[in-house]
Amino acid sequence: MALVVQKYGGSSVESAERIRRVAERIVETKKAGNDVVVVVSAMGDTTDELLDLAEQVCPVPPARELDMLLTSGERISNALVAMAIHSLGAEARSFTGSQAGVITTSAHGNAKIIDVTPGRVRAALDKGSIVLVAGFQGVSQDSKDVTTLGRGGSDTTAVALAAALNADVCEIYSDVDGVYTADPRIVPNAQKLAYVSFEEMLEMAACGAKVLGLRCVEYARRYHVKVHVRSSYTDNEGTYVYGSMEDIPVEEAILTGVAHDRSEAKVTVVGLPDSPGYAAKVFRAVADADINIDMVLQNISKIDTGKTDITFTLPKTDGPRAVEQLTKLQGVIGFSNIVYDDHIGKVSLVGAGMKSHPGVTATFCEALAEAGVNIDLISTSEIRISVLCRDTELDHAVKALHEAFGLGGDEEVVVHAGTGR
Amino acid sequence: MALVVQKYGGSSVESAERIRRVAERIVETKKAGNDVVVVVSAMGDTTDELLDLAEQVCPVPPARELDMLLTSGERISNALVAMAIHSLGAEARSFTGSQAGVITTSAHGNAKIIDVTPGRVRAALDKGSIVLVAGFQGVSQDSKDVTTLGRGGSDTTAVALAAALNADVCEIYSDVDGVYTADPRIVPNAQKLAYVSFEEMLEMAACGAKVLGLRCVEYARRYHVKVHVRSSYTDNEGTYVYGSMEDIPVEEAILTGVAHDRSEAKVTVVGLPDSPGYAAKVFRAVADADINIDMVLQNISKIDTGKTDITFTLPKTDGPRAVEQLTKLQGVIGFSNIVYDDHIGKVSLVGAGMKSHPGVTATFCEALAEAGVNIDLISTSEIRISVLCRDTELDHAVKALHEAFGLGGDEEVVVHAGTGR
Repeated sequence: MALVVQKYGGSSVESAERIRRVAERIVETKKAGNDVVVVVSAMGDTTDELLDLAEQVCPVPPARELDMLLTSGERISNALVAMAIHSLGAEARSFTGSQAGVITTSAHGNAKIIDVTPGRVRAALDKGSIVLVAGFQGVSQDSKDVTTLGRGGSDTTAVALAAALNADVCEIYSDVDGVYTADPRIVPNAQKLAYVSFEEMLEMAACGAKVLGLRCVEYARRYHVKVHVRSSYTDNEGTYVYGSMEDIPVEEAILTGVAHDRSEAKVTVVGLPDSPGYAAKVFRAVADADINIDMVLQNISKIDTGKTDITFTLPKTDGPRAVEQLTKLQGVIGFSNIVYDDHIGKVSLVGAGMKSHPGVTATFCEALAEAGVNIDLISTSEIRISVLCRDTELDHAVKALHEAFGLGGDEEVVVHAGTGR
Repeated sequence: MALVVQKYGGSSVESAERIRRVAERIVETKKAGNDVVVVVSAMGDTTDELLDLAEQVCPVPPARELDMLLTSGERISNALVAMAIHSLGAEARSFTGSQAGVITTSAHGNAKIIDVTPGRVRAALDKGSIVLVAGFQGVSQDSKDVTTLGRGGSDTTAVALAAALNADVCEIYSDVDGVYTADPRIVPNAQKLAYVSFEEMLEMAACGAKVLGLRCVEYARRYHVKVHVRSSYTDNEGTYVYGSMEDIPVEEAILTGVAHDRSEAKVTVVGLPDSPGYAAKVFRAVADADINIDMVLQNISKIDTGKTDITFTLPKTDGPRAVEQLTKLQGVIGFSNIVYDDHIGKVSLVGAGMKSHPGVTATFCEALAEAGVNIDLISTSEIRISVLCRDTELDHAVKALHEAFGLGGDEEVVVHAGTGR
């Protein structure tokens, strides 16, 4: 008997009506002869509403209590889906992350899954029940406190359960139809991919694609979980995310798609002494503030030949804090000034195919030049090329690259107001 | 160091603003040098809203899932109160009923507390924390499922914790100021009682007084928990519920108050054979439908001297079901017909004093007669006299009895729109 894990995002369960439709799909999957485990996010905007309520009673809510509060959202939606399944005549039981055996670190608000021991889930499945598991949460191994897993946590819960239960597939349902060669709202003739390897999906996610989070793809890759990204509004097949790009024959390796990202800002530390150790001081200062850095560039300084400029990108939300931190250490580190730019965009081409196709970088740059997009910074990996440009030019850049590499299909995509939730 | 348990009802925490006020009171209690444990109900009408959502997805929600759903309400309010306390500079941790060691039967929706093992609560108190415990819930000893305790469950949680932790007092906060000699909305010169014994409070609760539920008073009595009923809107002392009426010296025993109840209906089984066993069949039929009976009266039948009529009262909500059940068994049991009356009211006089004061029953009936209230049925216990009358005459009956037994004070009570929540 096949075991299917399904995950439904917040907008898929945002009302009693949507909940009933999701229940129908779940029961169909069960009737087709599968064991079914379902992970459900909180309804609609519940998490944001609870956060808002928290801030009304406490400006900086303590992390442990915030996790106790927010996990109510998933508890509510899972119990309701279980009830809706029951009203369709099937058996269903809901469990919290803790009850389902999701064991995590103690980092409230951003806990990592250490282990999944799904004994109660398996027992309920063996009794013929459909099982609901609240996503986005687990229990801390040390303190036995309830924890939440951070952004994309429900996807990670679903993949982790699929791994622990040896599921045949992990279906991630949202309001988008699958993974596309580019965002269909920018490129109407973008094509839905039938299949993407783990490494390529990791790059797409790292480069701004929102349909699956980095953490859940990495977990799927490590435990070889087949992921199927599909829409909860249609019966169409979506995109399978599975397998290693190493397994793709060289002749078949293709370019997967164009991703874009508006969420980053750029910091330039100007006039740093061009000697060993100074770059390290800059990056240590930023790391100590718990900020992740993305792209990095080091240049001869414009202002002084004995100096160097270091440029890096980071999430916009962390920008002001990074600038503040570095400014505090200006005297200690010894640079001239900091330039902060939050009007940048990042566009990336991803694909296992570029390893074996020389000239991709050249075509890439030519396409952007022809579109009048100025390249600010380039960064590459084995299967990815990313550049920074002005955020106002980002859409042009995406279209130009998509066209230049022949990624478009003949039909225009029907675009729902998809957010990938 | 004294240990105080406080319970706050739904209207006391119905908004962010009310939550902050409750937090202030809690922190004051802690600063006065006490260990503090707080039980909080769900905010405002949350429980009813969740029930409504449940019925939208499933007409008859499965009991286990309903408990998973409803317990979210208390989880939310307790986490928010803990956060509000934190913002006032004090330490607080919230626990679910399960985490706090509230062990129950498996009867979802109406579970009984079997035991309370408050290890984690005690540990948190010893570390100097204020502890929040979600009311109305526990965990089933057998299935390890989450359970809810039925109506008044948060009061029961508070008293049970007070017993297990050997608390000095259990303060029950609502929007009413204490226990009165009668409902101040009917009798403006009703007086607040400084003290009521357990047995008297049990009778008051059984006779319709809503401020404390039967189950929590019985629990308090069994474990000798001192209960203090007070308002969360003022600093006034309320009513202490404590001690046995046996301990009250005969000369000091008084009449406690007048309770009234509009929630019952009356069923008369007409023309039952007047032989052994038939009354038993009637009561067995009603008991099998899981319906509780209150007052009972058996009369010579009006229709036939060899027959008898049996009359009993029950909650209005169970009325139609009881009639249906008896009607089904009419042939088997062999009665003529059933009369159903849901326009009755019950008025009761309660007080340890009546044991030692002959003539109370006479005064009682005279007062009602003078007020033009017709007595339909009388029932008495050692410390209570109850009668049924028309529901339209109930207020007159309450006023008349309160006056006749000199229970009124000189001042008129300032009445909040109190519901006792």
